[in-house]
Amino acid sequence: MTGDPIGELVALLARLPGVGERTATRLAFYVLESEPTLASGLGEAFGELHHRVKRCRTCGNFGADELCHVCRDPRRDASVVCVVARVPDLVAIERSGAFRGRYHVLHGLLAPLDGIHPEHLHVEALEARAEAEGIRELVVATPLTVEGEATALYLADVFADTQVEVTRIASGMPHGGELEFTDQVTLGRALAGRKKV
Amino acid sequence: MTGDPIGELVALLARLPGVGERTATRLAFYVLESEPTLASGLGEAFGELHHRVKRCRTCGNFGADELCHVCRDPRRDASVVCVVARVPDLVAIERSGAFRGRYHVLHGLLAPLDGIHPEHLHVEALEARAEAEGIRELVVATPLTVEGEATALYLADVFADTQVEVTRIASGMPHGGELEFTDQVTLGRALAGRKKV
Repeated sequence: MTGDPIGELVALLARLPGVGERTATRLAFYVLESEPTLASGLGEAFGELHHRVKRCRTCGNFGADELCHVCRDPRRDASVVCVVARVPDLVAIERSGAFRGRYHVLHGLLAPLDGIHPEHLHVEALEARAEAEGIRELVVATPLTVEGEATALYLADVFADTQVEVTRIASGMPHGGELEFTDQVTLGRALAGRKKV
Repeated sequence: MTGDPIGELVALLARLPGVGERTATRLAFYVLESEPTLASGLGEAFGELHHRVKRCRTCGNFGADELCHVCRDPRRDASVVCVVARVPDLVAIERSGAFRGRYHVLHGLLAPLDGIHPEHLHVEALEARAEAEGIRELVVATPLTVEGEATALYLADVFADTQVEVTRIASGMPHGGELEFTDQVTLGRALAGRKKV
């Protein structure tokens, strides 16, 4: 700790994604000129974040307890599990309201060039769950990137000789998408994945 | 404190200017997935902000000590004082490197409709400084808004019968400004304030 409390805060804020030094300065002064409860609240929330946030021992989701709110909810369909790379992806799917099964968070994606190999993902845990919980279907909702696709293929391979069906979320035009401005790969997938109306 | 540490952090972050719930969520997860030192650093920096940051007893600038770094610096010209509304304005002027005098921070602007009257600004302190420090010139660098202009006029009035000259920063086209896209008031001021080349 140096003698410049504002400068220290600005330097830390500038490490956040999308926050440059200018924004960090603006935020720091805003907090300084606000009610002290905002600063103390943020201080406490950040300071205790890693103590208070636990990974769900079943699915890897973040939460305040040993089991996350999804795994605790008896109304969720335990036979369908959506596999995501990161917790924010799970949050996005929950926000859509389109999925009533449970989740499994890999906390990463296969990326051999970055040294992330199958053993770094929580796949043994997923295999154990598949057996213990009688999972019927794994909906792989990893991103539509090279790493996300590779991870989906890897999971399909792992569960190839089991009763578990591995499915992949659809790829195609986004809602409201204009054909004129859509990239070739997406257009190709939208065409290949066409369905009877 | 409730049972949702991430939600609490998101709610606090979303109170910052320019940060919506979506950005707040992204920032919270970023910190959660980063080295715990980032969260603990932010926790400490926010938590101790109001304890560690003091207002300079002379000029009102923020700093870690009784006197700010500008007021402590003997190379600064004490006879010219730049009057600003807020500390971020002081920081912006320091960044420009164009001013070698000292400062006076009003911590506000005249805004009678919002109940901010002359007695809420630190003007008596400025009058006392003018006498004690032998101030020759007050450069009023309040914003070019209705409140900023009113405050400048008020200060000119307060110091009208003294030896202190009250000046106002120039108003005109910003650096790189295109005439086509400049508002009428600015253009009018730029023309009225023209100088011999």
